[in-house]
Amino acid sequence: MGADGPSSPPTHQVEVLALEGIPEVEPGDDLPGIVVAAIRATPGILPMRDDDVLVVTQKVVSKAEGAVIDLTGIEPRPEAVEFAERWDRDARQVEVVLRQAVRVVRMANGVVITETPHGFICANGGIDASNVGPRSGSIVTLLPRDPDASAERVRVAVRLATGVDVPVLVSDSFGRPWRWGIVDIAIGVSGLEPLEDLRGSPDRDGRVMHSTVRAVADELASAAELAFGKVGGRPVAIIRGAAFRRGEGSIKDVLMPRDMDLFT
Amino acid sequence: MGADGPSSPPTHQVEVLALEGIPEVEPGDDLPGIVVAAIRATPGILPMRDDDVLVVTQKVVSKAEGAVIDLTGIEPRPEAVEFAERWDRDARQVEVVLRQAVRVVRMANGVVITETPHGFICANGGIDASNVGPRSGSIVTLLPRDPDASAERVRVAVRLATGVDVPVLVSDSFGRPWRWGIVDIAIGVSGLEPLEDLRGSPDRDGRVMHSTVRAVADELASAAELAFGKVGGRPVAIIRGAAFRRGEGSIKDVLMPRDMDLFT
Repeated sequence: MGADGPSSPPTHQVEVLALEGIPEVEPGDDLPGIVVAAIRATPGILPMRDDDVLVVTQKVVSKAEGAVIDLTGIEPRPEAVEFAERWDRDARQVEVVLRQAVRVVRMANGVVITETPHGFICANGGIDASNVGPRSGSIVTLLPRDPDASAERVRVAVRLATGVDVPVLVSDSFGRPWRWGIVDIAIGVSGLEPLEDLRGSPDRDGRVMHSTVRAVADELASAAELAFGKVGGRPVAIIRGAAFRRGEGSIKDVLMPRDMDLFT
Repeated sequence: MGADGPSSPPTHQVEVLALEGIPEVEPGDDLPGIVVAAIRATPGILPMRDDDVLVVTQKVVSKAEGAVIDLTGIEPRPEAVEFAERWDRDARQVEVVLRQAVRVVRMANGVVITETPHGFICANGGIDASNVGPRSGSIVTLLPRDPDASAERVRVAVRLATGVDVPVLVSDSFGRPWRWGIVDIAIGVSGLEPLEDLRGSPDRDGRVMHSTVRAVADELASAAELAFGKVGGRPVAIIRGAAFRRGEGSIKDVLMPRDMDLFT
C-alpha cells in the first residue's frame, strides 16, 4: 500500500464525514494522535476503507506544530504601516506577511498576495488571524513549514492505528482571481497523486481527451470543507468513496512553474 | 421555499450521489425531464430533502440547449491559424473561442484565456471538444447562453415533480492561475446564494471573521465532480446534507468587478 497503483474504481456515491470530538489544538499537541482518537470516537468511521481520504485543515496543523506567531512586539516597516492605514489592516500582520514572502505578487485593494517559501501564491501568505484559540487575540497562524510532511505524519499514525493506509491532505482556504469568495484547496498531500492526468485516455465517444488534468486533491479539499462547519469546530474529515490514484505525490506537483504561468 | 431564508443547520455528514441512467443528451432534448426521470430511476434519491442541491454539468446543459457549433466550414482568421500551428491546436476552434470572447485576457503557451459574454474568465472561453457525442467529431460545446436560467429550468421541473424546491447548480471545469489541473466550479445557480458571507460572524473564540466570504457554490460543484466519473457518463449529482443559504442568487454575484481584480 502507498506505492503507485491503479485508480480506485469509478464511484457513484461519495461521503464526507466530519470527525467529532477534536479539542482545541494547542502548540505541541500530538495532532496525529488526536486524529486517531477522533477516528475511534466518531460513529461509523471504523473500519477505515481503502477508498478513504483524510483531510485536515491547515489551522490545526499549524497550531499543533507551533507555526504561530505573536504579533505583540512585531515592528512593522513603513510600507506595512502605510498599507495598513490605507486599507484598515493590522500593520504587524502585514509585516509578518512580508517577512514570510519570497516575493510580493500584488499589493493593492487591501490585499497582499505573496509567494510563500512553499511556492504557493495566496492572499496574506496564508497567514490567518481567526480561530487561533481563546487566550491570544494577537496570535496568527503561519502555514506549516512542510505540509506534505505534516500530512505524512498523520498518515503514518492512522496506518499504525487502523492498519489501513489512508491518504492525507492538508487543506487551506484560498481566494481566486476573478471570483469572489474562498474555497478550500490542498496545500499538503501524502499517499495520493494530487493531479489525475487523463490526457490520452479515451472519452466515452472514443476520442482522446487532450487537456484534462484534474486537480483531484483540490476537489477533495473543497468537498471536505462542506462538512467542516463554519467556525472551525470540525477541522478533520474523511472522504469515503471518491476515485483517486495512490502514489507518493507531493503538493509541489500542483504548482505551475513561473515560466508557464500567465499571471505572475 | 425559494425565498431568502436561513442557512441549513451545520452538518457533519455530506453525501454526493450521482444520478444513474442519464442517456447521451442531444440538441433539443428535454434536460429537466431527463433529470427528473433519473431522480426517479436512481435508488435512494427519493424522497428529495430540504438539504439537497442538484449539480448538472455544463456539457449536458449545452448539448440539450443546442449550444454547440460544428467546426466544419469555420474560416479561421490568420491570428488563429498562426497560434494553432505554433501550439498544435485546431485553428477553427481557436477562431470560435475568439468569436465568442468579449476580450482576450491572455493568449500564450498554447492557451487562449478570454472573458466570455457572461463575465467568466476561462481557458478557451469554456469551449470544449470532448464528450460531445458519437456522431460528430467536429462539434464543440459552447457555454450555455444563460446558465442561471438553465439551472432555474431544472429547478422548476424538479420542484413540480417532487414537491421539493431543490437548488440547482450548473458546473464546469476551469483551470486556475499558478496551479496545474482543472477543478469544477459553478457557472449557473438557481435557488441558493453562491457566496456565503461570514464577515461579522463570530468565530469559535468570539472574534469576528473579517475576510471570510465562502464560495459555497464552487465547493459544491467540486464535490459533485468526485461522483461524476471520469468520462462523462454520470453528469448529474445530488449533494445531500451540505449547509447552504437559500436565496435567489445569481452566478453574477461571484464575478469580481474588473476594477477590483488584480489579475485582469
